Amino acid sequence: MNEGITIDRARAEDVAAIVAMLADDELGARREDPGNLAPYLAAFEVIDADPHQFLAVARRGDRVVGTLQLTFLPGLSHRGATRAQVEAVRVHSDVRGGGLGTDLLAWAEEEARRRGAAMLQLTSDASREDAHRFYERLGYTASHVGFKKRLG
Amino acid sequence: MNEGITIDRARAEDVAAIVAMLADDELGARREDPGNLAPYLAAFEVIDADPHQFLAVARRGDRVVGTLQLTFLPGLSHRGATRAQVEAVRVHSDVRGGGLGTDLLAWAEEEARRRGAAMLQLTSDASREDAHRFYERLGYTASHVGFKKRLG
Repeated sequence: MNEGITIDRARAEDVAAIVAMLADDELGARREDPGNLAPYLAAFEVIDADPHQFLAVARRGDRVVGTLQLTFLPGLSHRGATRAQVEAVRVHSDVRGGGLGTDLLAWAEEEARRRGAAMLQLTSDASREDAHRFYERLGYTASHVGFKKRLG
Repeated sequence: MNEGITIDRARAEDVAAIVAMLADDELGARREDPGNLAPYLAAFEVIDADPHQFLAVARRGDRVVGTLQLTFLPGLSHRGATRAQVEAVRVHSDVRGGGLGTDLLAWAEEEARRRGAAMLQLTSDASREDAHRFYERLGYTASHVGFKKRLG
């Protein structure tokens, strides 16, 4: 873990900083609306109330500098294995390249092991080639195709 | 929907039939153990108690002929959108090619819309090329790479 970085559960007062990071991204800029926090705060309440969810923030001092969402998915396949799914990984542009992404994923893996998950899984947009190299360095295998269908 | 098919929530007494379908599959045969139902029944209890989970079975009469697991994932990204995730889609070998897979995915999409999800998502092993064509016919886009990491 980078010195001075702590990772813990997000609080409602962190939502604005998380949304700013989601929007500060080539893909995110097209789909987020940081000027209207209400739908994000409503979603935060649902996440925060769900024991299968852990919305994490990395802080340096009091400042939010990274985030990811970890979901625990019970399932029958793989002999009743629980999967830990990672979504919405973001590192603040001010601290990119300093290893915070590695810290966030290491935290997720430790938490997944602690809760008995048999597998970590995530999908990454096909255009994010740097991210794909990053996940492969961390021991992930690009074994699957990720399909999405928007509901209009 | 195929005539005579109903889709509803799985019950504990359906678990053996679901596991038999999970195991009757080129990839599943290597990783499932239908002779020992205990871990599957334990996982079923967790799924069944979670309001964000819907383990579905398709029945013809009293017989289980298909399954999928639908998970509702709250999230901050995409303006606080809920995603509906499909896992563990299986159609009994006796009824393959009869459109039951299409029925199962149509059911999942209807349920996702009913619960206000903005997106359906799933991953499929890169080797399942027939499945990929199937999902593309149903309007899914292969926009992402799916990464997995097993925790030993």
